[in-house]
Amino acid sequence: MIVVMNHGNNASSIQQVVDFVEKAGLKTQVSKGVERTVIGLIGDKTKVDRSVLESIPDVAEIIDVSKPYKRAAREMHPDDTVITLNNGLKIGGKNEPVVMAGPCTVENWEMLSEIAEAVKSAGAKVLRGGAWKPRTSPYAFQGLGEEGLKLLDKARAATGLPVVSELMDTKDIPLFLKYVDIIQIGARNMQNFSLLKELGKINKPILLKRGLSATIEEWLMSAEYILAGGNTNVLLCERGIRTMEKYTRNTLDLSAVPVIKKMSHLPIIIDPSHAVGHWDYVPAMSKAAIVAGADGLIIEVHSAPEKAACDGGQCLKPKLFSGLMQDIKALSKYR
Amino acid sequence: MIVVMNHGNNASSIQQVVDFVEKAGLKTQVSKGVERTVIGLIGDKTKVDRSVLESIPDVAEIIDVSKPYKRAAREMHPDDTVITLNNGLKIGGKNEPVVMAGPCTVENWEMLSEIAEAVKSAGAKVLRGGAWKPRTSPYAFQGLGEEGLKLLDKARAATGLPVVSELMDTKDIPLFLKYVDIIQIGARNMQNFSLLKELGKINKPILLKRGLSATIEEWLMSAEYILAGGNTNVLLCERGIRTMEKYTRNTLDLSAVPVIKKMSHLPIIIDPSHAVGHWDYVPAMSKAAIVAGADGLIIEVHSAPEKAACDGGQCLKPKLFSGLMQDIKALSKYR
Amino acid sequence: MIVVMNHGNNASSIQQVVDFVEKAGLKTQVSKGVERTVIGLIGDKTKVDRSVLESIPDVAEIIDVSKPYKRAAREMHPDDTVITLNNGLKIGGKNEPVVMAGPCTVENWEMLSEIAEAVKSAGAKVLRGGAWKPRTSPYAFQGLGEEGLKLLDKARAATGLPVVSELMDTKDIPLFLKYVDIIQIGARNMQNFSLLKELGKINKPILLKRGLSATIEEWLMSAEYILAGGNTNVLLCERGIRTMEKYTRNTLDLSAVPVIKKMSHLPIIIDPSHAVGHWDYVPAMSKAAIVAGADGLIIEVHSAPEKAACDGGQCLKPKLFSGLMQDIKALSKYR
Amino acid sequence: MIVVMNHGNNASSIQQVVDFVEKAGLKTQVSKGVERTVIGLIGDKTKVDRSVLESIPDVAEIIDVSKPYKRAAREMHPDDTVITLNNGLKIGGKNEPVVMAGPCTVENWEMLSEIAEAVKSAGAKVLRGGAWKPRTSPYAFQGLGEEGLKLLDKARAATGLPVVSELMDTKDIPLFLKYVDIIQIGARNMQNFSLLKELGKINKPILLKRGLSATIEEWLMSAEYILAGGNTNVLLCERGIRTMEKYTRNTLDLSAVPVIKKMSHLPIIIDPSHAVGHWDYVPAMSKAAIVAGADGLIIEVHSAPEKAACDGGQCLKPKLFSGLMQDIKALSKYR
Repeated sequence: MIVVMNHGNNASSIQQVVDFVEKAGLKTQVSKGVERTVIGLIGDKTKVDRSVLESIPDVAEIIDVSKPYKRAAREMHPDDTVITLNNGLKIGGKNEPVVMAGPCTVENWEMLSEIAEAVKSAGAKVLRGGAWKPRTSPYAFQGLGEEGLKLLDKARAATGLPVVSELMDTKDIPLFLKYVDIIQIGARNMQNFSLLKELGKINKPILLKRGLSATIEEWLMSAEYILAGGNTNVLLCERGIRTMEKYTRNTLDLSAVPVIKKMSHLPIIIDPSHAVGHWDYVPAMSKAAIVAGADGLIIEVHSAPEKAACDGGQCLKPKLFSGLMQDIKALSKYR
Repeated sequence: MIVVMNHGNNASSIQQVVDFVEKAGLKTQVSKGVERTVIGLIGDKTKVDRSVLESIPDVAEIIDVSKPYKRAAREMHPDDTVITLNNGLKIGGKNEPVVMAGPCTVENWEMLSEIAEAVKSAGAKVLRGGAWKPRTSPYAFQGLGEEGLKLLDKARAATGLPVVSELMDTKDIPLFLKYVDIIQIGARNMQNFSLLKELGKINKPILLKRGLSATIEEWLMSAEYILAGGNTNVLLCERGIRTMEKYTRNTLDLSAVPVIKKMSHLPIIIDPSHAVGHWDYVPAMSKAAIVAGADGLIIEVHSAPEKAACDGGQCLKPKLFSGLMQDIKALSKYR
Repeated sequence: MIVVMNHGNNASSIQQVVDFVEKAGLKTQVSKGVERTVIGLIGDKTKVDRSVLESIPDVAEIIDVSKPYKRAAREMHPDDTVITLNNGLKIGGKNEPVVMAGPCTVENWEMLSEIAEAVKSAGAKVLRGGAWKPRTSPYAFQGLGEEGLKLLDKARAATGLPVVSELMDTKDIPLFLKYVDIIQIGARNMQNFSLLKELGKINKPILLKRGLSATIEEWLMSAEYILAGGNTNVLLCERGIRTMEKYTRNTLDLSAVPVIKKMSHLPIIIDPSHAVGHWDYVPAMSKAAIVAGADGLIIEVHSAPEKAACDGGQCLKPKLFSGLMQDIKALSKYR
Repeated sequence: MIVVMNHGNNASSIQQVVDFVEKAGLKTQVSKGVERTVIGLIGDKTKVDRSVLESIPDVAEIIDVSKPYKRAAREMHPDDTVITLNNGLKIGGKNEPVVMAGPCTVENWEMLSEIAEAVKSAGAKVLRGGAWKPRTSPYAFQGLGEEGLKLLDKARAATGLPVVSELMDTKDIPLFLKYVDIIQIGARNMQNFSLLKELGKINKPILLKRGLSATIEEWLMSAEYILAGGNTNVLLCERGIRTMEKYTRNTLDLSAVPVIKKMSHLPIIIDPSHAVGHWDYVPAMSKAAIVAGADGLIIEVHSAPEKAACDGGQCLKPKLFSGLMQDIKALSKYR
């Protein structure tokens, strides 16, 4: 951590910073430059409150030169984390990219089983489907709830595919422990710290979506909450960020893939469906994600998008999905 | 709701839209323009799923011409909502703007009581203070929890000031019902829909902060969740949005004040402290908020910012706060 | 164009809209919905001023249902535009993706000729290099100017590679007509309308970079300026947009590729170097751009990045570039 | 300037940085922390190329601790700059806030003279009016050009009000020197560096609008271009930045006022009309701007907004403007 002093180099303010830092047990190194004095802090910075420093007169800026995440950082954990599901499927590291696919929302058994069979035969390895849906409007369909999880459980029994579904409330964790293989945390809950703390106490893999306007650093800090709690099974999921662009629902930040690969050891999954919001842009972005180095994809597929309970416009039909899976398979060697 | 068809005006696609809409019990009006055909929907649009329409071939765009919020809309509720606290203090409408002030975090009784007395004598009408703190890092101080609420309760007894504090978890609602006068929902939980639903079931005033990158429409939709549940005591709080600007922590969207006054009947409170993140910008923005028409302010005040447990850099000292309160009083007639 | 009236359906305001529109020679169609009345405009909307409509009482919103660009729109021009350079190289349509490569800035003949030979032997088809540089600071190196163009001209003579370089001022157009094969317009000048108008009067291919926070629609409108002037040789170039993310210089909006392919017939080139700002993220994003369907790439290559006059941190060394070119060649069949 | 090395503290990379910096004539100070080594640079940093440093192995980050602007910085120029127009009107410093008002676009003499008289009698001190208009669409009205400037000149003769109008092209500078008192540079040209350099060579006051998504630092760097060229008469103008919010055209960053007052000595003018884009939000934001400390306002006024050639929806009618001027006068003592 570095404290930058205002122009003028007021000696008493500099001394106040030094005293405060040294009282906390750290060492300081003062460098007087031509325009500004900077004070380097050496030692355990968690003992120093940044905002107290900010309130000392003449402090212009405080700069963190080390990353605020530790357990999520590749620096501290050079090897890729590989997540192993109950059925033995491995995600991350040198493993083949894993495609998770299924409907946005679980609607009924007939629909779910039809789609589950279709995505399985196309090569998907995990079935996705929402039971609780985060909807902007209180008047929109909110999902089947527990009934939805039971249908997913039934679909797993029928197809052998592990299932992923979104958790929105700490009180539902026991249900998710029982029925799903991967717990998804949606973009709107990325900084629901109460929820993240509870997820640190369990051992189930967590698919942590990036917040709508979260930086990669904040996203890794949210992963850090889960890791610090003791749950090391975290998958990151980029699903598009909010920008000025209106022709796509969000802007898929695909450069997050090489950035995460450099900064962290956690696997990264791309959700092209929510990122772009239109089915016809999904294949291009799916292929791009694979060659950019993603560890997997999560794609919405529906056999009758025009009847889907939500987000029909962004679903691929099984036939298109099946063709895309051929390309994905061929492209995985170019990661 | 209006459905815009792609150039080409394919007759079978137009018919498919018309059929789908009329089957749901609405009427349609088809207008063939020079370049595009648009289909107007007349009737209860909640019966029509937008995303299903999106998946019909040749549908280019679907446009909502009515606002998605109803209970939060001024159109449906022309009179200003006035919130009355337990001690009779009224917020909103023609009432004087209310200033809420206090430390970012409740640290101990000595500090809290000193600040509470200071803000009271300067003219603040509500005491603020965090007991649970949403921190980006799991390693940062997370607040005193229940002990913090008890200290706030004690401060209310000592000063007569109602208290506002942030709730982060549904399971803590009973404690907040017992100890606080206004429940604050932070920016990161603005779309924690599970939490919003629970807040609709109680009767305590809610201070709903705008999300980091939420549109005003999304913010009003979150208020709608609470209102739809039956709790009509919602105060909106603008606390800065995320932009490219780096000299301030966030960008205070002060134009949200006249926009909310036009679109909604709910009171709007401005939080200049979190918006700008530096104490020396707080007075200017506080005064600006008042003449822009805000119903109140929530300001961080600390008697020793350089010792504050968090966000010391954005706190006003009591003396500066007291001077600011004089200006605020003088300015309230220019709203 | 559709005019949406405020709730209340004030008859005199509706009449005022109808009168204004019909006086301009268009027809109207009035649809009274449950909550709002909408008025459709049929005819040549360029005869109606949108902002005048906005100022009529009770007008809530005006919605354009047709795209504001015409010449840039695929609707009006279904076939892909193919740009042919002087040496016969074709860009766009079914042609192989074209890689443009070279130093950020032309520094001297020795450096330029070394890099030009290197990128040529790796398979690049166009040589890039800046002669005038848009620098945030007036104190930074501003480029060699005309001397830089002459060196590019010499490099073309030596290697046979066509050259692309950035134009910043209308007064330099004659020089660019003489020395370069493609005129690049930088992100900061995307809405320099005086410059765009002049570019419409010449016939040289234009590489139009997307503005830092421009929407795709605004970008296509800037292309429209050039096309409307009579120059149909426009290449679009996505180079990253400004977002909250800080680990990359900008956020590469790769979904712009399928969006442009749908909305427009113009070729689209991706600049991964400026988008991400770090050389080690460039290969992943280059490969992703190709499979997403881009018509080409523009990549910074420098034989001694640690000595480059600017942007050394984002340059690939020739050896890494050469390896990347192998992948790009293999991937082009997956577009 | 501080160079932060990657974790690992590779000795040869550290030496490479030290050698490079010292060869440029600066001194270095190396601080080995627990996690990272940081290298402070002491001396004239303009001699060191940042991007070359970035390309040295193991360099993680380069941090500027001094501001990149010098002539625009208050640190270097503690006293407020006051701009004096030809008629003696002073803007900035302790002077009363100056209101500039008039139509978006100059349309004809009758309209212009009517509005000019109206804004003068309400208390405006400068007449605004566009002769060249930056329009997103090539098909929209582009302004009267030189004829517009002549009408402004005539209006100045009639009313005594100095005039401000937007310049879009270096070739028109002679006309602006002849006809206008303040040259406005629009948001889209804020980083048109060729234009900024030419403005540095003249002596006419420049109203430099902030770019659509420019940071305050970039804005001050654009001012620095003009100041470095020798023209010290720069007025900054905040006109709203691009955010996710859709209910206003842009988001007025009013906190830019206290930030600019702290960071710079240049006067700051607020343009509420373009920022919010709707006339009914303009009065609230105008009043807020004054108490936030702005040195002036630039407001669109039109006697018949429903007939305006552009942006009619954001114009105030003279009567409303006149009432607002009363409030502004009363509020200026609260700055």
